[in-house]
Amino acid sequence: MNIALLGFGTVGKGFYDLTVGREDVKVTAVLSRRPREELTCLVSDDFHEILASDVDIVVEVMGGLHPAYEYVCEALRAGKHVVTANKWLMCEYYQELVKLAKENGVALRCTAAAGGGIPWLTNLERVARFDSIYKVEGILNGTTNFMLDAMTKNGSDYGEILAEAQRLGFAEADPTADVEGYDARRKIVLSANIAFGVDLKEADVACFGIATVSAADIAAFTERGLVCRLIASAEQAADGSITATVEPTLFPAAAAEAAIVSSGNRVVLYAKHIGEQSFSGAGAGGWPTGSSVLCDCLNILDGCRQFYTDQFTPASAAGNALRRYYIRTSAPLSVAVEESLGSGIVTAPIPAAQAHRMIAALRAEDNTAFMAALR
Amino acid sequence: MNIALLGFGTVGKGFYDLTVGREDVKVTAVLSRRPREELTCLVSDDFHEILASDVDIVVEVMGGLHPAYEYVCEALRAGKHVVTANKWLMCEYYQELVKLAKENGVALRCTAAAGGGIPWLTNLERVARFDSIYKVEGILNGTTNFMLDAMTKNGSDYGEILAEAQRLGFAEADPTADVEGYDARRKIVLSANIAFGVDLKEADVACFGIATVSAADIAAFTERGLVCRLIASAEQAADGSITATVEPTLFPAAAAEAAIVSSGNRVVLYAKHIGEQSFSGAGAGGWPTGSSVLCDCLNILDGCRQFYTDQFTPASAAGNALRRYYIRTSAPLSVAVEESLGSGIVTAPIPAAQAHRMIAALRAEDNTAFMAALR
Repeated sequence: MNIALLGFGTVGKGFYDLTVGREDVKVTAVLSRRPREELTCLVSDDFHEILASDVDIVVEVMGGLHPAYEYVCEALRAGKHVVTANKWLMCEYYQELVKLAKENGVALRCTAAAGGGIPWLTNLERVARFDSIYKVEGILNGTTNFMLDAMTKNGSDYGEILAEAQRLGFAEADPTADVEGYDARRKIVLSANIAFGVDLKEADVACFGIATVSAADIAAFTERGLVCRLIASAEQAADGSITATVEPTLFPAAAAEAAIVSSGNRVVLYAKHIGEQSFSGAGAGGWPTGSSVLCDCLNILDGCRQFYTDQFTPASAAGNALRRYYIRTSAPLSVAVEESLGSGIVTAPIPAAQAHRMIAALRAEDNTAFMAALR
Repeated sequence: MNIALLGFGTVGKGFYDLTVGREDVKVTAVLSRRPREELTCLVSDDFHEILASDVDIVVEVMGGLHPAYEYVCEALRAGKHVVTANKWLMCEYYQELVKLAKENGVALRCTAAAGGGIPWLTNLERVARFDSIYKVEGILNGTTNFMLDAMTKNGSDYGEILAEAQRLGFAEADPTADVEGYDARRKIVLSANIAFGVDLKEADVACFGIATVSAADIAAFTERGLVCRLIASAEQAADGSITATVEPTLFPAAAAEAAIVSSGNRVVLYAKHIGEQSFSGAGAGGWPTGSSVLCDCLNILDGCRQFYTDQFTPASAAGNALRRYYIRTSAPLSVAVEESLGSGIVTAPIPAAQAHRMIAALRAEDNTAFMAALR
């Protein structure tokens, strides 16, 4: 099959590398703003020239909402299959794009959009065909895991480690999307929608990142045998209501989450019949993420035309699940306290939604306030 | 599709439960020695009556080599797709059965044969399509993991914990296949053959189980911050030669392997481009294992006719990989020693094949001798 590649950044280049020498999947056109003398295929900065060339699948790895959205719509309308690694796009427009793909009888796949090289969305789709999934969660952002792991191991300051992550290419110049949890939030929205057949939006996910974690917090956790990880989670209660959160979470040092080091990812599904099943590996990087894109292409080549889900049942994201939270703030705090931990306290079990409302209010008064759920 | 189910034990019943209420996959015939009044479909103890009924897929979950082998051959020759959970059968006759399936234009799948409910073989197959896998390994036997985990947590004796595992249904009356590592060996043979496209046999895998592990060994490991797990492993060196082993292995307490508790399984693949990728979940049990069988059926329904691999390159299982080993024996030992550990010693790095020859010889003199590799 002939592939048009939109974007030649880390993922685009990684995917391209993996197709070199293959007969079944061939990159024949690349959309690029600048010339690529290393490429022998059609290279153009004109999307319409790319689309008009003889291609079967359009691979969108440019990122961002626009013009990715317009290009993907146009490709689907032109009867091209689309594979994308763009979590933002898929999180925002999943339902609409699936509808468009169906109307045009083509496939739309986005395995690389959550979990990078881990075949997470395809396995969610697989399990949803025969089992009832009630919870999905995990470490879905490599940047923050790298930072939390390094802070735990070296006792470094947040600012220090952020600078190092940027120097090493693990964090972007503007790290907001990673450290505030927005990246993980998009991935858990996609995961939850596929797992539960619902239609969550980003705004339904209570989100608190690691931007205010301190070396002293981490030291207190270590002292208590706890390890901090940024966990994106969505669980559906028996009444159908959902608790969806992105939040720092404390695990015993022997937990599987604690064993995820550097920029690794680990995601878990819980289902009625098969129980707990987890997947770990590289959540980012050109070759791993490119491999998920390639897998989507190979599945399309094999005739796969199904979507991860085409159920979009409305669901209430009430956030009722009860959890205990570590909270450290200099602002006045009014909550039932179970014990103290370092310079913070541990609350009695409270609804996740309440904890997130509370930390948002606290942070307005004390911009260093930090919170983490306990498992 | 109509399914003939050969065997109605734990896995057969689990699979059956998962098909109840489905329209796409329906059990229409069950081979059973005794009547099954709870079933409304055809139940017979006559395989030929079952095969002559209107079935599309024969699901073999009876276990053992014979008559499973004869039934599977006959089903393939009759143009039926075959799905099996039988690791012994597939380990012994994989190449021959794949050939027979091809000749008859039907599918042959066995995802449940390694890893139970974990989609391990399908993911190996997936990765092998675009990457070069050089190592597969993991915890592939739930019984021994349950025992090692319990010994670590409770300080129990081997005999005590074996009796408990038998009482709880985790171990069979004759536990040999589990505790000597033969079960894990069959699973690693299948995994290695799919991962590397080779033709290993059981005899190519050096195998040492946990039958001689003592409470004192475990206590010494714990004292040193180490956790013991039974690891089945196959790695291919740059020269193509393979080291394939089943052996107790010591990990730091913070390792992911140490976080696999009770009867859980965890398997890992290492590939050139995607790096390390791991999968964990329930390695046994009716519903999890039945779900892998069901997935194979659904894949066949979707048109999947490919085999996990159809490359069978001969490879030398030289066992050259160098590892350090803990050895505890009262027999005289002649090996370069690095340090002592509990009542045993830790060797300098030696080829795995040499360690396994040594422990076999030692065990003939001292039937309590124990060995574990260090990671």
